[in-house]
Amino acid sequence: MKPKTKTVKISIIGFGYVGAGVAEVIRRKREDIARKYGLDLKIAGIADLSGIFVDEDGLDEAELLKLKTGEKKWERPDDMTTLDLIRDVEHDVMVETTPTNVITGEPGLTHIITALESGRHVVTSNKGPLALEYSRLTNLAAKQGTELKFEASVGGAMPILSLVRENLAGNGVLSIQGILNGTCNYILTRMAEEGLPYEHVLKEAQELGLAEADPSKDVEGVDTAVKLVILANAVFGMNATYKDVEVAGITSITSDALQLAEEAGYVIKLIGEVNTEGGLKVRPRLVPKHDPLNVSGTLNVATIKTDLAGDITVIGKGAGPVEAASAILADIISIYV
Amino acid sequence: MKPKTKTVKISIIGFGYVGAGVAEVIRRKREDIARKYGLDLKIAGIADLSGIFVDEDGLDEAELLKLKTGEKKWERPDDMTTLDLIRDVEHDVMVETTPTNVITGEPGLTHIITALESGRHVVTSNKGPLALEYSRLTNLAAKQGTELKFEASVGGAMPILSLVRENLAGNGVLSIQGILNGTCNYILTRMAEEGLPYEHVLKEAQELGLAEADPSKDVEGVDTAVKLVILANAVFGMNATYKDVEVAGITSITSDALQLAEEAGYVIKLIGEVNTEGGLKVRPRLVPKHDPLNVSGTLNVATIKTDLAGDITVIGKGAGPVEAASAILADIISIYV
Repeated sequence: MKPKTKTVKISIIGFGYVGAGVAEVIRRKREDIARKYGLDLKIAGIADLSGIFVDEDGLDEAELLKLKTGEKKWERPDDMTTLDLIRDVEHDVMVETTPTNVITGEPGLTHIITALESGRHVVTSNKGPLALEYSRLTNLAAKQGTELKFEASVGGAMPILSLVRENLAGNGVLSIQGILNGTCNYILTRMAEEGLPYEHVLKEAQELGLAEADPSKDVEGVDTAVKLVILANAVFGMNATYKDVEVAGITSITSDALQLAEEAGYVIKLIGEVNTEGGLKVRPRLVPKHDPLNVSGTLNVATIKTDLAGDITVIGKGAGPVEAASAILADIISIYV
Repeated sequence: MKPKTKTVKISIIGFGYVGAGVAEVIRRKREDIARKYGLDLKIAGIADLSGIFVDEDGLDEAELLKLKTGEKKWERPDDMTTLDLIRDVEHDVMVETTPTNVITGEPGLTHIITALESGRHVVTSNKGPLALEYSRLTNLAAKQGTELKFEASVGGAMPILSLVRENLAGNGVLSIQGILNGTCNYILTRMAEEGLPYEHVLKEAQELGLAEADPSKDVEGVDTAVKLVILANAVFGMNATYKDVEVAGITSITSDALQLAEEAGYVIKLIGEVNTEGGLKVRPRLVPKHDPLNVSGTLNVATIKTDLAGDITVIGKGAGPVEAASAILADIISIYV
């Protein structure tokens, strides 16, 4: 028995690695998704700083991906702005993947508000708007009767938000502890395994593209803190913002400290923690070697302490365009299935 | 805005550790579940070999739990049988928690068929019926328009089935590898850490209640194989039964072998694996120390290899009455929410 197929029109706002990843994943998975979930996904529009493409019957993803290789040039129909697209082009789900800005939340914040006010569902990987204006956005979505989903904003492909909401339904969550930044985990893992100093490994990570030229957001714990705020709000119903987090990064960890920890049966990891007591903390902590939180390399991990299921740990790739796109795709499907 | 509350009447068939755990969890979580999900859970009946209690307005869980301490004696209304209860007492969800029988699937198989034929949803922790008659049962549920859910049958509180179906929706699953039996993991962990021989650690596990007097189902890989069959059918759409699994257990693992593995940077774990090639294997395997599959003690773990999200690993307690009840509760909620 084949289910009836429902057309779902999508806009992708921000066509960087993640936005293009979403187009690529839709291209690869269109037939599977139609067969398994009865959804026909069409990209009705994409927008980036460089231009806009719109086709309410569905753009060709293979063509769009040529924008990333330079084989295709950006265009813009009649001075259309991104907000025009969000408001006026008929579609069901806006996918927001512009870069995170933790000071103003823009331009994502305005994109999300505009989409919700236009009655569209929103799926986003953008942490800024959620860390700054969580209750405003969720209240607006509730008022409009639309969905606001953001699994990709915390831990990339690693499911946490949906895990707590669905798989652990009925459980009380006591705390979440995790490694939410792959760059820090890579640096600490290499320092511990090779006995190398921080500066050396940071440089290596930068050469490998695992750390940015200005690595401060990662190594000073800002990125982890922003994700923690999203978990605090979404899972614990707090009304927290970035300012509520006590943050220490990894810049002063020495290979001597890692060596001492190792001898005592521990590793040092940058751990974000939120619990029912309300404290939000990001800091380097000793983790027993056999603890499930001890994961290596660029992996992310979270241990969810619950009152019924005990401790549930989930491990996955925290970054990467296809991984983030995978979380976005699952969020889109969950709106309809 | 308070959602309207829907009454959900439940029967619990099999009132051992898991069945009583379900009653206990419903007692503890009734108010939370009404508030968060708008569901008023009532136990309309319980049945065990020793007797039956029925009240369509809802039994008192605290009273029922006295059956486990001997403070209350079993009764049976007018020769009522378990099948009478399943068929004739008005309720919405049958929770089946009788012991697993991998030869006949009984009595669980008949309980589940009767419940589905009576138009009831089924939530079960019982592996036997699913390992023997998976397609018959899922086809019957589909025909009746009722749900058949069994998260608790694989990995206890550790979510796998719902993780693949919901959190990883849109992903193709390439393989699942995991430690699905806590007893084997406990034995191998202790042997490796303390250099103790198999027989010694088995005896210790038996004294701690972690292994049964006849430990063969655990240590010979039967329990792992049965869970693997459920994963193969539910995730990969195979039509496998226990006989399709190539099984080797842990009884011939020596502490010397564990020591050699350790020196080379590995641990030995009893791994169940199912993949798209179709092979179902349970056998001791070398696992690199830094692999997320290397978890200690009685923990269970599964790594799900996907085409988009990469490798996702989930770790949790594979056994325990409250943990299994937690998975059953999440399954019940998922039917309605």
